[in-house]
Amino acid sequence: MTTSSSSPLGLHRVIDPPGVLPQAAWQLDPTPAIAADEVRIRVDRLNLDAASYRHLRETYAADPDKIRAAVREIITTRGKMQNPATGSGGMLTGTVEEVGPTSPLGLKPGQRIATLVSLTLTPLAITDGLSRWDTHSEQVPCEGHAILFARSIAAVLPDDLPVPLALAVMDVCGAPALTQRVVKRGSTAVIIGAAGKSGSLSAVAARQAGAAKVIGVVPTEAEAELLRNPAATQSSLVDEIVIADARDPVGLAKKVEEAGGPADVTVVCVDVPGCEGGAILSTTQGGTVIFFSMATSFSAAALGAEGVAADVTMLVGNGYVPGHADLALNLVRTTPALRALFERRVRHEGGQP
Amino acid sequence: MTTSSSSPLGLHRVIDPPGVLPQAAWQLDPTPAIAADEVRIRVDRLNLDAASYRHLRETYAADPDKIRAAVREIITTRGKMQNPATGSGGMLTGTVEEVGPTSPLGLKPGQRIATLVSLTLTPLAITDGLSRWDTHSEQVPCEGHAILFARSIAAVLPDDLPVPLALAVMDVCGAPALTQRVVKRGSTAVIIGAAGKSGSLSAVAARQAGAAKVIGVVPTEAEAELLRNPAATQSSLVDEIVIADARDPVGLAKKVEEAGGPADVTVVCVDVPGCEGGAILSTTQGGTVIFFSMATSFSAAALGAEGVAADVTMLVGNGYVPGHADLALNLVRTTPALRALFERRVRHEGGQP
Repeated sequence: MTTSSSSPLGLHRVIDPPGVLPQAAWQLDPTPAIAADEVRIRVDRLNLDAASYRHLRETYAADPDKIRAAVREIITTRGKMQNPATGSGGMLTGTVEEVGPTSPLGLKPGQRIATLVSLTLTPLAITDGLSRWDTHSEQVPCEGHAILFARSIAAVLPDDLPVPLALAVMDVCGAPALTQRVVKRGSTAVIIGAAGKSGSLSAVAARQAGAAKVIGVVPTEAEAELLRNPAATQSSLVDEIVIADARDPVGLAKKVEEAGGPADVTVVCVDVPGCEGGAILSTTQGGTVIFFSMATSFSAAALGAEGVAADVTMLVGNGYVPGHADLALNLVRTTPALRALFERRVRHEGGQP
Repeated sequence: MTTSSSSPLGLHRVIDPPGVLPQAAWQLDPTPAIAADEVRIRVDRLNLDAASYRHLRETYAADPDKIRAAVREIITTRGKMQNPATGSGGMLTGTVEEVGPTSPLGLKPGQRIATLVSLTLTPLAITDGLSRWDTHSEQVPCEGHAILFARSIAAVLPDDLPVPLALAVMDVCGAPALTQRVVKRGSTAVIIGAAGKSGSLSAVAARQAGAAKVIGVVPTEAEAELLRNPAATQSSLVDEIVIADARDPVGLAKKVEEAGGPADVTVVCVDVPGCEGGAILSTTQGGTVIFFSMATSFSAAALGAEGVAADVTMLVGNGYVPGHADLALNLVRTTPALRALFERRVRHEGGQP
């Protein structure tokens, strides 16, 4: 299939509907033969998006056979792993198998890589029926292949960090990169879901950007403890901890204010619907809210801000910021408490950190 | 009911579920008796959100009786006009009837006002069954009352502009205000849906902010003609016109580039789903996309940018920017071509400009 009619955006892989970008497509063509500017990856692991994984577990009542069957069905039908209910995908790791002569990605056969573009636009075929996946974790060991386009993003896995750890970090690396870009020296940052993966990275990024105060919001005392003291180190990842239900705007805003808020920058990192109002009410007039959760409702955010006469800048969390993977990996390398929290999260999810 | 237990955000009017903000509530209490910081409005006209109106027309095949019944049912059941399918509302005009002694809005009985907060969070009751509405327009003449909270936003209707015209301008006044804030001198702005109401206002706002080039995207030659020459004045509202389907990312980006793009700032003002990818692809690396359409999908925007490795800042169009109503009304007053276009739109919708 090595052909010159390929598109850097992958348009030539779109089956249905024709002419749309791969992410918007219902079905992609995962044929293994590559175009001149493509790369084929031998896949060894998928890392499902948190919202998608949660939806699958809840829909199939945590039944492993049903969850495996559902994911197999999605991949077979769509030629990619995009959960139709959540619209989200995830990422994958694998080994570079074949590189087209005009690929600009700089990859070489044999390199272990992670894709930093979403599974929602990555042609994918699975050959082992997902039989090795116990479904207790969003990390899915598997066999198959995937295709990268000229304008895809992939990172060579680092030698100095365990693969599941690096994968978990790179999966959410857009959040700390954008947080660091937006937070100004001396400001107050509120991280909603601060003990999670994107949340803890964003908290450390906010501190590194010079925030005078970082307030971490978590739902439970157990999550607060993780943030306070991730695995017996002495440092906390945040300056203040607020235990609150982020879906309760009024309760959240009150507690954030008591902890030193409102925020100049609020970062939403929890994958549950209904957090827009609380984030807006916890942010000062003229401040910024960054929404990283795929559970964010556009209209709830837009109308919510208008409804409380809130002059806040609201950003759609873009998963791509140049240099995001290196930035996030370096935060984990240089912040022992963050690494400890991540290792604990990865262990908890059933991967080997 | 004049009581001191009211909330500036209207929490005391929320029936179901309790404790959420009025916008997020399924049902509000539109009891006419006001709290000490509230204002009651005698309503004379609703202006339905474009996405909501379109949905109603399509769902009920433009049948007036069915559309009226559906809107009546929503208002009666929910105590507010929020279309459950689109999540959106609109705005209203009316006359100030009673002002609580501690209301901070500065209103006086007898003033004609428009609400600048959404109908999705405004307690509303209708008494005339919407019998005067022919359903051929999103502007709904009616009788009833609505409640404003302490932190609502209302604007006194100007003396020098016809009411339906002022109403149509104020309904979308957040778009030009945010556009003017974001566009920098010498930049290139692309307005998707430039011949619409929020689009034409945003185009003029971009020019006033100093954009070197304003490119207007419209779907048809008829819309292009509106933009080129709204009612026989000589000036065009934009510098370049692109006729393209905004849902076709690849086709749109190509035409925008031919017209002098990509954009530093792209403003999405069309109420159709699927415009995220085209807006992103039409914007230069490091540029900004402002989404004003309620049909915007959060995940399509976030994943779409990541999927094409686009380092663009994406803003959720906040309907509230301080001074937005005055800014928009002044653009219409001082730009004859814009006023002509608006008057034509309002006439077309069945209102009297």
